Amino acid sequence: MDGLKYSSDVTVQLVKHSASDEDVAFAARVSTLGERSLEKTEKLEGLINFLIRERHGSPFEHSTMTFYVKAPIFVWREHMRHRMASYNEESGRYRVLEPEFYVPGKDRKLVQVGKAGAYTFEEGTSEQHAITLVSYRRTCKEAYANYMDMLAAGVAREVARGVLPVTIYSSAYVTMNARALMNFLSLRVSFEGSHFPSYPQREIEMVAENYEQIFKELMPITHKAFIENGRVSP
Amino acid sequence: MDGLKYSSDVTVQLVKHSASDEDVAFAARVSTLGERSLEKTEKLEGLINFLIRERHGSPFEHSTMTFYVKAPIFVWREHMRHRMASYNEESGRYRVLEPEFYVPGKDRKLVQVGKAGAYTFEEGTSEQHAITLVSYRRTCKEAYANYMDMLAAGVAREVARGVLPVTIYSSAYVTMNARALMNFLSLRVSFEGSHFPSYPQREIEMVAENYEQIFKELMPITHKAFIENGRVSP
Amino acid sequence: MDGLKYSSDVTVQLVKHSASDEDVAFAARVSTLGERSLEKTEKLEGLINFLIRERHGSPFEHSTMTFYVKAPIFVWREHMRHRMASYNEESGRYRVLEPEFYVPGKDRKLVQVGKAGAYTFEEGTSEQHAITLVSYRRTCKEAYANYMDMLAAGVAREVARGVLPVTIYSSAYVTMNARALMNFLSLRVSFEGSHFPSYPQREIEMVAENYEQIFKELMPITHKAFIENGRVSP
Amino acid sequence: MDGLKYSSDVTVQLVKHSASDEDVAFAARVSTLGERSLEKTEKLEGLINFLIRERHGSPFEHSTMTFYVKAPIFVWREHMRHRMASYNEESGRYRVLEPEFYVPGKDRKLVQVGKAGAYTFEEGTSEQHAITLVSYRRTCKEAYANYMDMLAAGVAREVARGVLPVTIYSSAYVTMNARALMNFLSLRVSFEGSHFPSYPQREIEMVAENYEQIFKELMPITHKAFIENGRVSP
Repeated sequence: MDGLKYSSDVTVQLVKHSASDEDVAFAARVSTLGERSLEKTEKLEGLINFLIRERHGSPFEHSTMTFYVKAPIFVWREHMRHRMASYNEESGRYRVLEPEFYVPGKDRKLVQVGKAGAYTFEEGTSEQHAITLVSYRRTCKEAYANYMDMLAAGVAREVARGVLPVTIYSSAYVTMNARALMNFLSLRVSFEGSHFPSYPQREIEMVAENYEQIFKELMPITHKAFIENGRVSP
Repeated sequence: MDGLKYSSDVTVQLVKHSASDEDVAFAARVSTLGERSLEKTEKLEGLINFLIRERHGSPFEHSTMTFYVKAPIFVWREHMRHRMASYNEESGRYRVLEPEFYVPGKDRKLVQVGKAGAYTFEEGTSEQHAITLVSYRRTCKEAYANYMDMLAAGVAREVARGVLPVTIYSSAYVTMNARALMNFLSLRVSFEGSHFPSYPQREIEMVAENYEQIFKELMPITHKAFIENGRVSP
Repeated sequence: MDGLKYSSDVTVQLVKHSASDEDVAFAARVSTLGERSLEKTEKLEGLINFLIRERHGSPFEHSTMTFYVKAPIFVWREHMRHRMASYNEESGRYRVLEPEFYVPGKDRKLVQVGKAGAYTFEEGTSEQHAITLVSYRRTCKEAYANYMDMLAAGVAREVARGVLPVTIYSSAYVTMNARALMNFLSLRVSFEGSHFPSYPQREIEMVAENYEQIFKELMPITHKAFIENGRVSP
Repeated sequence: MDGLKYSSDVTVQLVKHSASDEDVAFAARVSTLGERSLEKTEKLEGLINFLIRERHGSPFEHSTMTFYVKAPIFVWREHMRHRMASYNEESGRYRVLEPEFYVPGKDRKLVQVGKAGAYTFEEGTSEQHAITLVSYRRTCKEAYANYMDMLAAGVAREVARGVLPVTIYSSAYVTMNARALMNFLSLRVSFEGSHFPSYPQREIEMVAENYEQIFKELMPITHKAFIENGRVSP
């Protein structure tokens, strides 16, 4: 035991939201407060399918979702390339970071085949899994010990953190509207459909799958139209 | 009577929101669901004041507000220069536009004094008010009659609308987060404080004042900190 | 003669640019200054086609173009819905606007057939053209006369301009990067290909066609890949 | 010798640009091609100072700069929070990352004093410097050895990179316009002026200082107005 905590998961919680299929229709029709009344499902389906098919994306921007997400730093590095989102991440300048690290789980495919932009993955042998686990644990242990050494010597947190590996967990608040979220999902969930294949790294896909499940519950008609139009963001 | 409707107002309705002072604190601290509990007011005040003073704007982005707004086109033209917002405006390509026009009211100051960038306004004589009212009504009447003539002749709505004046009313859904809204308010409400004076056109200021009243009710501590820090957006 | 100037055109000038196919490759490869050397065409074609097909849009963002554009206000109203762009428009608050108005030309199809979102247009009879021309001229004349009356009476420019029709010309500087421009073109040039049909209003399409011609000259390989991938923005 | 390369610097190269003080004036005045002629300096100074003082930021958006930057990952993590910018970073999914690591130099102040949001830094003893250097080297060596072990065993690059520390160097292309750049500088260069103090981490400040030097050379009048107005971005 080295006192460090390892996990092969990510955490996604819905913190709050202002999102519904009805809101999409109200926005598309610019309804006043008085005109906002519950839409019949069949009408909503037709309208929302039309909006996605014809790439009228703006009505989806009025539905927002705020998530609490805990994921390794290498996931955040990809996540924050999505600029149509709001972020607040915990700060390694102001706090000592906890020794919690992501390690690939047994079901994480380890071997890359094919070429850049169209990789696929294969299982990996039990030896490869063992080497990975040992390498991660060995490095995390060394890194965190050195981090603590520097802190103990009075070195600033922002300097000491430089040795921490990108697999350390970090938490953030993320707010996206439904349009931005569909764009995120179209790029960060594997999809081999004809027009827009997508080959995300598995760990950000785990975050994206959690988002998609929540999105599907909050906006089932929009989600269905998104799927049926080939996972293309409007 | 010419069958046209004139008004000197704008309409702003809060359609929905996901905004509160507590949410700012939860975001700044990256609180998990379990950690989210009502904050004591005095602590909130200190934190929010610190965030605005030090320009940590991101915690304010997780609070969103959706408005239904009805205003003349010349207001929309200025409003849509604000890109950190989501818009759905009713379409003159798909619908016949109603004959509803903004005319300056009796309390609208008509005479500009001073120089570009720092205009101030004076009342205007009753003659100036009379000329303005007559000019507006005469033009709106002529324009709308010509619009209807073209429609009656089978000309497309998107072509016929070209003759309509920028004072015709149009409606839209507008979603902004609290950070973008503070930026909007800092530029679109008159303010002659030392650092960042602002000289908005009165009609967009009318929209902004409505926004500010709603914002103040939803997020009183944030609004207070915004005011006390000189109406500067973080 | 009424002293007003009518035209059926839009103006688009390339003011400056920092755009080339090579720059896309340098960005995709994160080349240092020393590594930047002219790429062979066949390699560039393969890389750029790959980037567009796989939706790697970011390498196209480092190529920017600045345009001077003169177009009627109803075109600007649509144009400014594109938020990934920078705008500076001449101000009707600070200057007296010139009496220059757009009127639909003889080749502007006037009659809309089909349904919302998938309109097509037909010629229009000579009578319809005549009514349109007369209606435009009559309204513009009345509006501009009233505008001048108010100015003559000392009413502020920002108030007087309210009567001007949306067909009056206005000028602006527009800067877009190649990614944003492809998005603009994908939505604002007619296209009836299978996946993403587009039905823009003719007048904004005239601006877009001008943009596309310039874009094609500056970045021929990128433009070709854009076309061959179905006019989809990456 | 461990075969790794250490450095205490960052690299910033100007790759290309379309930026000048004159362009700001042309944009502010919406000049046609014919009207674009070299402005007299004293006029430019007055106009640009006015624009910054009155927060008319849009004329600065038409001037863009593209940089090649090499910096440790912990700098990129802060840099990419700036969303008004375009990024292309080298990929650890497609390439094996080089063993080049940032270590704090002798002049890097190591000890943090004061409280959150207003930290200042003090030198640090030679012991603290020694501990820091040893801790960095020890961790980087261990991490890179484990990275290579996994690669040698056939583990995918995107998995193996998880052990690399945030102090490893990474390169990217960054394009910003002058308005976004001034915002970046206002937050990422230390400034203790009255209204908007700024306390950036030293390493991102090193990047920002390089940007500022280039910006000052390309747009000296804009830079001067930025400074004289208290380093506030318009």
